[in-house]
Amino acid sequence: MKSTPTRNSSKNIVDNKIEIYDTTLRDGAQTEGVSYTIEDKLRIAERLDAFGVDFIEGGFPGSNRKDKEFFVRATKMGLKNAKLSAFGSTRRKDATCARDAGIQSLVKAETPVVCIVGKSWDLHVNHVLRITLKQNIDMIADTVEYLKKRGLIVIFDAEHFYDGYVENKGFAIDTIKAASDAGADRVVLCDTNGGSMLKLVAEATSEAVEASGVPIGIHAHNDSGLAVAVTLAAVESGATHVQGTINGLGERCGNANLCTVIPNLTLKMNKFCVDEKNLKKTTELANFVSELGNQPLGNRLPYVGKSAFAHKAGLHIDGVRKVRRSNEHILPELTGNNTRALVSEMAGKANVLHVAGRLGINLENNSKAVSEILEELKELEYRGYQFEAAEGSFALLALRKLGRNTSYFELGGFRVVVDKRRGREIFSEATIKVKVGDREELTVGEGDGPVNALDNALRKAIEPFYPSLKEMRLTDYKVRVLDERDGTAAAVRVLIASRDNRDVWGTVGVNENVIEASWKALVDSIEYKLVKDGVTSRSVGI
Amino acid sequence: MKSTPTRNSSKNIVDNKIEIYDTTLRDGAQTEGVSYTIEDKLRIAERLDAFGVDFIEGGFPGSNRKDKEFFVRATKMGLKNAKLSAFGSTRRKDATCARDAGIQSLVKAETPVVCIVGKSWDLHVNHVLRITLKQNIDMIADTVEYLKKRGLIVIFDAEHFYDGYVENKGFAIDTIKAASDAGADRVVLCDTNGGSMLKLVAEATSEAVEASGVPIGIHAHNDSGLAVAVTLAAVESGATHVQGTINGLGERCGNANLCTVIPNLTLKMNKFCVDEKNLKKTTELANFVSELGNQPLGNRLPYVGKSAFAHKAGLHIDGVRKVRRSNEHILPELTGNNTRALVSEMAGKANVLHVAGRLGINLENNSKAVSEILEELKELEYRGYQFEAAEGSFALLALRKLGRNTSYFELGGFRVVVDKRRGREIFSEATIKVKVGDREELTVGEGDGPVNALDNALRKAIEPFYPSLKEMRLTDYKVRVLDERDGTAAAVRVLIASRDNRDVWGTVGVNENVIEASWKALVDSIEYKLVKDGVTSRSVGI
Repeated sequence: MKSTPTRNSSKNIVDNKIEIYDTTLRDGAQTEGVSYTIEDKLRIAERLDAFGVDFIEGGFPGSNRKDKEFFVRATKMGLKNAKLSAFGSTRRKDATCARDAGIQSLVKAETPVVCIVGKSWDLHVNHVLRITLKQNIDMIADTVEYLKKRGLIVIFDAEHFYDGYVENKGFAIDTIKAASDAGADRVVLCDTNGGSMLKLVAEATSEAVEASGVPIGIHAHNDSGLAVAVTLAAVESGATHVQGTINGLGERCGNANLCTVIPNLTLKMNKFCVDEKNLKKTTELANFVSELGNQPLGNRLPYVGKSAFAHKAGLHIDGVRKVRRSNEHILPELTGNNTRALVSEMAGKANVLHVAGRLGINLENNSKAVSEILEELKELEYRGYQFEAAEGSFALLALRKLGRNTSYFELGGFRVVVDKRRGREIFSEATIKVKVGDREELTVGEGDGPVNALDNALRKAIEPFYPSLKEMRLTDYKVRVLDERDGTAAAVRVLIASRDNRDVWGTVGVNENVIEASWKALVDSIEYKLVKDGVTSRSVGI
Repeated sequence: MKSTPTRNSSKNIVDNKIEIYDTTLRDGAQTEGVSYTIEDKLRIAERLDAFGVDFIEGGFPGSNRKDKEFFVRATKMGLKNAKLSAFGSTRRKDATCARDAGIQSLVKAETPVVCIVGKSWDLHVNHVLRITLKQNIDMIADTVEYLKKRGLIVIFDAEHFYDGYVENKGFAIDTIKAASDAGADRVVLCDTNGGSMLKLVAEATSEAVEASGVPIGIHAHNDSGLAVAVTLAAVESGATHVQGTINGLGERCGNANLCTVIPNLTLKMNKFCVDEKNLKKTTELANFVSELGNQPLGNRLPYVGKSAFAHKAGLHIDGVRKVRRSNEHILPELTGNNTRALVSEMAGKANVLHVAGRLGINLENNSKAVSEILEELKELEYRGYQFEAAEGSFALLALRKLGRNTSYFELGGFRVVVDKRRGREIFSEATIKVKVGDREELTVGEGDGPVNALDNALRKAIEPFYPSLKEMRLTDYKVRVLDERDGTAAAVRVLIASRDNRDVWGTVGVNENVIEASWKALVDSIEYKLVKDGVTSRSVGI
């Protein structure tokens, strides 16, 4: 937001500019399963600012201590692009603004912007708040006026506007007029329950744009799977301010996903939200927010998901090879994503060739090997393996089929012990016997858990022979029960992610025993590291 | 589908009927991470039939052996409502239909319906197929005509129709005319790359409805986050046939999600798809398909997700208590879902009261306990716990705060050993020492993995005292690494789901050591079972 939003700022905003108001830290924090620390919230705010959103709603200072503390620290951050906003409600029916604790905590948040929500649906006024329509209008007008007098930029969120428009259009319009007449800088139409259909949204938004003298915004929820569509429809009807969250986080079905809305507005509808350079960081931002919220990013999320430009069908990857736009709606690089080919039993030979090629394994002239690899993929996937996130295990499989695999070490056996005694800390210990060439090594390792102990014991045994292993470490460890009907006795799939100074790679193991499955993934991870470094068993002098 | 779809069947279909063509088993099987067995596919087909879809696309018999075998078995299933469809392409440019292997495998699938896909975008014809536009039109016409002569119901999928409409409208329209003139029963407009915006879809669909004499369908992909909206827009422009998948499965960003489309059409747009009784099974169907595909059902999926009607904000659950529709866009029961209140640090006291009440714990007159519970929830969530899927652990926490907890047993210690020797099967063994009242029990258990062994040893020790434990079993076991930066040395959260004859409950444990975290969740699971059965430590005579 380069121009200061004031009551007349719509003039200053270039014609096709759409303001982005991010509420990941407030509405997004309502997501089931998400719980941000203050530190998380500050880090996310920093990223949102760098990405170029216009407003960052940091929280609801009147609702909990964490949000209150957030504002104390966030107002000192020195945001470069975005303006910080605090969220609250219109004053209570029986208090003046000066004596309303919620309003006062908004003022004390010391943000340049406040967003206040008020009712626009008579049902809520009559049956939830249980006050008169006139009282509700007064609450809106008073609150906006009070906050404007304190020099704040005031955004009015018209809660349940579209439901209100259907059931009592006059009242719904009166609420937004009350807000704009009292000096609100933006009036935002909320589809709070997320149930509105597109035609209604288009019609009601146009009418609101007519009725209100200030820039109109849209705040949509995804309960009908239409939050993105509703947002775009409101923009087509004249809204110039969009509220949403990264990854569509939010209570129930979530809010409009800004990582979908922004690319759509920019790449498909000729609007301006964030600049081209930042648009390329959309995928990175989506992953960052999902990591801090400790929720995996949905593979199939438009523009940013891991699968968004991944082709499983052989025909499609063939099309992309010939003309990219034939099977891709945008160039994935525009949002920081990339084209992928997947290996699976559904894959054609084109996919196996593409993936092997990327891993430096040339199969072009060996169609027998390609067929054998496809065959074994099919067999292993049947047993629960998955190679789509395990390129390391895939590469080892391909090399075995080509007879180009190397035996780096042989397992004699291992034993893992986890011991817990009353009053003492739990401990994990692993002993392992491996043969490297002619040398037999017997080592023991401790760890924070059984797999960590096993990893430590194995490394102790083989690192002297393969020193480059020191560069690698495990970065993720995922366990998945494959047949949920049998609980802890079911087969499990373990996916391990590893990295060194240059690369990140995944490996997979499947077994009824989680330790055995982990062992397989661990061994693949180490072997793949050695393969990609070009280490042969000879190079250790065996 | 009660009426037989023939060329003139549009007359027989009631005015507001929208045909549902499910392609979960074909397009849905292209989802990254999904791999169905034939058995899975047959079970899904059975459910889809019972749910009341009109067509079930079972696969692409020309592409792989599994799909071919599926049709051999599926054609003998005796579907009650749905018609089985096999998917394929128009004939190759250089083969007659009689000599085209793909066409012949379609015929050999022996389904009543076939769906054939042909190009409607000149870019693909010119640059991917590399043939003339005339050749492409002939391929469509020949193929439809050939299959109609074999007595089949023929559906034509006009691939990339909307992209083709933008770049060469005349040619795109000619392709669908070629199909309808040759006798196709349905012409389906595909947004294959998923990049089309709503205005274009509305305009192009209306024109296609005008140009073609047969019922028009829509097949949308979700690459712009608009698959549901595009589907509804096409219906508003005259389409009467909808293709999609359960849970929006599909390659890249997936297909239109039928579990969103069907409720929207039925509950919001006054159309008929499946009857009311079956609509109530939408949530069950979504869960079933997600389980067989071994992918967790997204919490935030509209209508069917676990969070779809879950309220974290205290104000919202208060609103729902007063007037349900004030904060719910539909009654969740209509799609087989239900209202939930969530307990978390964001929750108000209303949520704690609601959840405790549902678990039979009356807190109404004890606001001190409510505050203390909220306080401890906050502290534990900070350490990585999550109670939203762990009502068992939440109940135990609440009882502890009320001083109404029971000590069923005391742990002296345990040791878990996992042993693997060259040439022998891996084995897991756990020894445990527990005190029940004055009695000390020392037992040993084996298992498929360390947690299973521990579970068996513990049960052996305490089941003689608490025989109702025999009724319960673990049904799911999930492990989540909480801080992905440290790989196997990071803290892990274990969620266990358990059930007995009456209930299903979740419990949670967090620790750096996966065995310790599992132990905590396991103990909570057993204790909650005893609490809910009303077992006291006295009742075992201690």
